[in-house]
Amino acid sequence: MRYRAIVEYDGTRFCGWQTQANGPTIQAAIEDALQQVAGHPVRIFAAGRTDSGVHALGQVISFNLERDITARKLHRALNSLTPPAITLRTLDVASDDFDPRRMARRRAYVYRIWNTPYPSPFWQRFAWHVQRPLDLEAMQQAANDLLGDHDFESLRASTCDARTSVRRIFISQWQRDEQLLSYHIEATAFLRHMVRTIVGTLAEIGLGVRPVDDMPRLLAARDRGQAAATAPPEGLCLTRVDY
Amino acid sequence: MRYRAIVEYDGTRFCGWQTQANGPTIQAAIEDALQQVAGHPVRIFAAGRTDSGVHALGQVISFNLERDITARKLHRALNSLTPPAITLRTLDVASDDFDPRRMARRRAYVYRIWNTPYPSPFWQRFAWHVQRPLDLEAMQQAANDLLGDHDFESLRASTCDARTSVRRIFISQWQRDEQLLSYHIEATAFLRHMVRTIVGTLAEIGLGVRPVDDMPRLLAARDRGQAAATAPPEGLCLTRVDY
Repeated sequence: MRYRAIVEYDGTRFCGWQTQANGPTIQAAIEDALQQVAGHPVRIFAAGRTDSGVHALGQVISFNLERDITARKLHRALNSLTPPAITLRTLDVASDDFDPRRMARRRAYVYRIWNTPYPSPFWQRFAWHVQRPLDLEAMQQAANDLLGDHDFESLRASTCDARTSVRRIFISQWQRDEQLLSYHIEATAFLRHMVRTIVGTLAEIGLGVRPVDDMPRLLAARDRGQAAATAPPEGLCLTRVDY
Repeated sequence: MRYRAIVEYDGTRFCGWQTQANGPTIQAAIEDALQQVAGHPVRIFAAGRTDSGVHALGQVISFNLERDITARKLHRALNSLTPPAITLRTLDVASDDFDPRRMARRRAYVYRIWNTPYPSPFWQRFAWHVQRPLDLEAMQQAANDLLGDHDFESLRASTCDARTSVRRIFISQWQRDEQLLSYHIEATAFLRHMVRTIVGTLAEIGLGVRPVDDMPRLLAARDRGQAAATAPPEGLCLTRVDY
């Protein structure tokens, strides 16, 4: 039987999504819980492999179990076995061909910046602290240049192994709530470090150290070296995946 | 010179506000930072002594230094010396008679409840997790019975040493944001554990295990034994003190 779940996690103390040798990961924590319930090793698949320190409100996963367990029972058991930083919001039986990564049509992320001279005890785990004031209007103007189909070669990690770097952006919107700035971005799919490199570059525009109309030039350059440093992971959260 | 500051803190890992022998406190952390800057021991005074695990967005403190330091310099130095869970939002020179506790006219708290079957990785440090659905309408109806002047003998800790238990409540209001319930309460002053005992009692009303019209009877009884258990500290935050 195949199952599908929506997973929420505080990524602060994890080495990202994907199971690896050198530290705890979200995938390994859920697989461990599943093995305890199922009695056999279980491999899970996710819509997106979030990096170390990145959070999720709406990661989507799937996995197969050898024997059927009711979704309600399995949901309860997994939530009692996973660490408090990981919660399965929903869990349902899925069709046998459900593939959370290939079948995703659209993904939504939010990136948060805490923009005051002093850090916030409450937002330190979930926002990038930028001390100098950011010009949100300039950042929005540059963010608009990302809408539509573009080649994001300049804005992906050099380690990104996706075959094509063209992606379609549906939403690229800043929002302010007092000192908290939130950048909402939605696309068909994202490249490695793409949101964080976009935010790092938009922040340079907001600080006035990069021209507000630099995005079209940067996209055309197809050169990662011309973008800003990748913004830190704690501000990033995968909020939703659409099918 | 006397100074006044507004302090924000994540109380999760502290044994409350007040300096004591058996664990780290907010007061001790700020006094340590002050001693490093001033070169002499400094005693600080606060508007309210929050309990272990309770948070603040707007705690107000005052202290004296033997020699004058500009507020701007002092503010920056203290924020670099205090742990990340504590931030001084503002710091100014105060009049010599400023007393944050005695001169406070009004205090505002918020108490948050995360009301879903499963805990939230993001709200676990800042909200009480109540699994069974709460009837917010009933809780608001009972909360209205607290408005005005009342004797809160039934709703304070047995260890509370305040001389009188009469307090005036200005605001007693629930608010829902999806699964997050926030209770806003403002009063002249509060008794020990008062907000948490009120919330514990309102939650019993919301769960249907206590009648919705129980508050007037409970207040008249003047008996702590008839109120509910104190709600846990992580949901509570001192948001504002007015002078």
